[in-house]
Amino acid sequence: MAKELSKRQINIPVDDIPRQFYNITADFPDPMPAPKDPESGPSRLANLGKIFTSACLGHEMAQERFIDIPDEVLELFIKSGRPRPLFRAYELEKELGTPAKLYYKSEFYSPTGSHKVNTAIVQAYFAKQEGFTTMTTETGAGQWGTALAYACSLVGLKCKVFWVRAAYNWKPDRLAMMKLLGAEVHASPSPQTDAGREIYLKDPEHPGSLAIAISEGIETALKDEKAVYSLGSVLNHVLLHQTIIGLETKKQLALIGEYPDTIISCLGGGSNFGGLSIPFFGDVLRGEAEKEIKFIAAQSQSAPNLQGEYKYDFGDYAETTPLLKMFSLGHKSKFPPIKGDGLRYHASAPIISYLRNKGMVDTIAYPVNEKEVFEAAAVFVRTEGFLPAPESAYSVKAAIDEALKCKKNREDKTILFNISGHGFLDLAGYKDVLKIA
Amino acid sequence: MAKELSKRQINIPVDDIPRQFYNITADFPDPMPAPKDPESGPSRLANLGKIFTSACLGHEMAQERFIDIPDEVLELFIKSGRPRPLFRAYELEKELGTPAKLYYKSEFYSPTGSHKVNTAIVQAYFAKQEGFTTMTTETGAGQWGTALAYACSLVGLKCKVFWVRAAYNWKPDRLAMMKLLGAEVHASPSPQTDAGREIYLKDPEHPGSLAIAISEGIETALKDEKAVYSLGSVLNHVLLHQTIIGLETKKQLALIGEYPDTIISCLGGGSNFGGLSIPFFGDVLRGEAEKEIKFIAAQSQSAPNLQGEYKYDFGDYAETTPLLKMFSLGHKSKFPPIKGDGLRYHASAPIISYLRNKGMVDTIAYPVNEKEVFEAAAVFVRTEGFLPAPESAYSVKAAIDEALKCKKNREDKTILFNISGHGFLDLAGYKDVLKIA
Repeated sequence: MAKELSKRQINIPVDDIPRQFYNITADFPDPMPAPKDPESGPSRLANLGKIFTSACLGHEMAQERFIDIPDEVLELFIKSGRPRPLFRAYELEKELGTPAKLYYKSEFYSPTGSHKVNTAIVQAYFAKQEGFTTMTTETGAGQWGTALAYACSLVGLKCKVFWVRAAYNWKPDRLAMMKLLGAEVHASPSPQTDAGREIYLKDPEHPGSLAIAISEGIETALKDEKAVYSLGSVLNHVLLHQTIIGLETKKQLALIGEYPDTIISCLGGGSNFGGLSIPFFGDVLRGEAEKEIKFIAAQSQSAPNLQGEYKYDFGDYAETTPLLKMFSLGHKSKFPPIKGDGLRYHASAPIISYLRNKGMVDTIAYPVNEKEVFEAAAVFVRTEGFLPAPESAYSVKAAIDEALKCKKNREDKTILFNISGHGFLDLAGYKDVLKIA
Repeated sequence: MAKELSKRQINIPVDDIPRQFYNITADFPDPMPAPKDPESGPSRLANLGKIFTSACLGHEMAQERFIDIPDEVLELFIKSGRPRPLFRAYELEKELGTPAKLYYKSEFYSPTGSHKVNTAIVQAYFAKQEGFTTMTTETGAGQWGTALAYACSLVGLKCKVFWVRAAYNWKPDRLAMMKLLGAEVHASPSPQTDAGREIYLKDPEHPGSLAIAISEGIETALKDEKAVYSLGSVLNHVLLHQTIIGLETKKQLALIGEYPDTIISCLGGGSNFGGLSIPFFGDVLRGEAEKEIKFIAAQSQSAPNLQGEYKYDFGDYAETTPLLKMFSLGHKSKFPPIKGDGLRYHASAPIISYLRNKGMVDTIAYPVNEKEVFEAAAVFVRTEGFLPAPESAYSVKAAIDEALKCKKNREDKTILFNISGHGFLDLAGYKDVLKIA
């Protein structure tokens, strides 16, 4: 019985938590296209040193394959509940009648409810070390803002959050959570910044976008020398920190002698998709993968950025960032609001875009009404009992689709997916989409 | 470093999960006062066999010290995330400046957000085994109703919940969660039952009480022979199932060579307080406790039932249950609404009442405005990062009070407390009480 029991929930001992992040760029066959300045205007590259901590810039450009995690950061990871269990979805498999084996990583078991705390902890730790007193940022669905508020609270920093208004307006409870954690929160576009003011004055109820909110966060950090900006996705250092997810998962799968045929997660900017998948992409690049792995990014048709063009583009609306080589739909684009607001971003991370350009990343985009996505999440809730965040519902939907293909083709594939956050603060979204009275 | 790391978050391997519940009544020095019928009216004792599963009735009356947990129940426990970590509250200790060591059990790491899933899983498993198709119940704060909906969903049973209207009205998100899990939910008092109809017709906005809702749940089960009733607290079998909390915690503390001087939890009916403390009460009764332990039940002045009278009383408003020997404020009492609605019950569990009568349980009751309780929870959020349910905020407040006494008296006591649930669905309560704009 003991063996069977432990295949339902697999975890490594706390002391076996990975001690290094994995930097996949060290294994790239040719160099990543470097960030660059636009042909006119002030240098954005020159700004980076004023925006980010030195440590994060170091991580951004790092050449080493593995980067040590400071002991104090490991302490905070463990305080936040890491390592997080991997679950086998036996009841979901049975419901679908699939021969596939489904495993999900429980990033929802986090103090603020999502994987975003992982990089927030690292960034706040280094900001404190480097003498800053304030961190600024933007947030879409609100998960990232809450995570940074949490991390700042733990290390003793002030936190200023610019929150995309479309989400801010219908999430008063998440707002309360950020404020409980001591954060100062502004609906974006806001009158607080040059980047936001113009749009705000034209339309105080402008729904906003991640790109606008990023501009506001960066501007606020640039105007205060004791403040430092923090990004929750897209950049190399963020994905580096998130590799803790995949590194833990590899150790957990090894314990039960499993290796994935398929790896799935939702993708907005790319931090949770990258966090889970990058250590496995590394296996492939180094020729060490035990199997041919299919990687699938689950997206929304609202912003299917992996179906965009691979080109240099800005990371934000106001063109404050350097140009990054990304699959992008254009940084001035407007996207229809969806409940999975964390997926409503114009481009995917340079690392993921690089891998996509090599033909290593598949993608699927689900309709903007989100009906089939929330219905998939409802099946997951009834069989597995955990409530996925709207973004994570896309992972669930894609995992179910793959499991049903296995059923049709009679394949017993091992499918790994990530539940990046819980939906306790997003039940209004479930009610709206599924018409729960 | 390895040693220090693991003192922050302590857990046992999944396969070391306790395989037996602990029945403390086997260690009582003299017999517990038996349930009995009132002097007039129909026999309530005769009804028990129609209300509960045979397995739960067996647990209720059990004589053995240890009771095997079926393999299938262990599977479901593990599916629900057990064993749950024990955390050392280093940052809270530092904030308070106390020499005390504070440990909290993470029952909030549960699919529905509270410890209630423990007994729900056991009860639903046996109901299914015994051929029932429906479970009925009541709920106060909503945690129990959600937990039973979860358990019924996992094993394939229909679930009918009568929810105290005071809480039902301000928790639309929790209602959605219950419905996502497939439950049928009625605000109580409801027009669905004889017990509820009279009160409902007089006042359709009657705030209700746990006692009324219990009557509605029992009546509904009695009227349908394929339905069985389920109680989420108070009774011996519920506390028996919840001992999994304390049994796990004992193993976790043993791993780091710790033993508690003080054990704290909030107490409404007694299931989370009992769940954590009963295995340690057992140590005391058998003369095996490593230290003299102080047990503290944190209550609300709304319903400080441990300060009531030790007498035979009904468990419900409509006098459907047998008489139980309990510390009670009277089953017809009305209690002021509080956010920690799970603490608003007229009596404490017979097992806890027995121990209280032996002088083994201390209690403290906090004011009905709940200001100091929520302020304590806010300190916990800022230092430890996890958001307690309103009920669990009482545990936090009592733990902080004890830690501050240790500071004053320069004592390095080991204080153990339970965070029985998370507050993600209760942020409206935080906003109200703490006036978060």
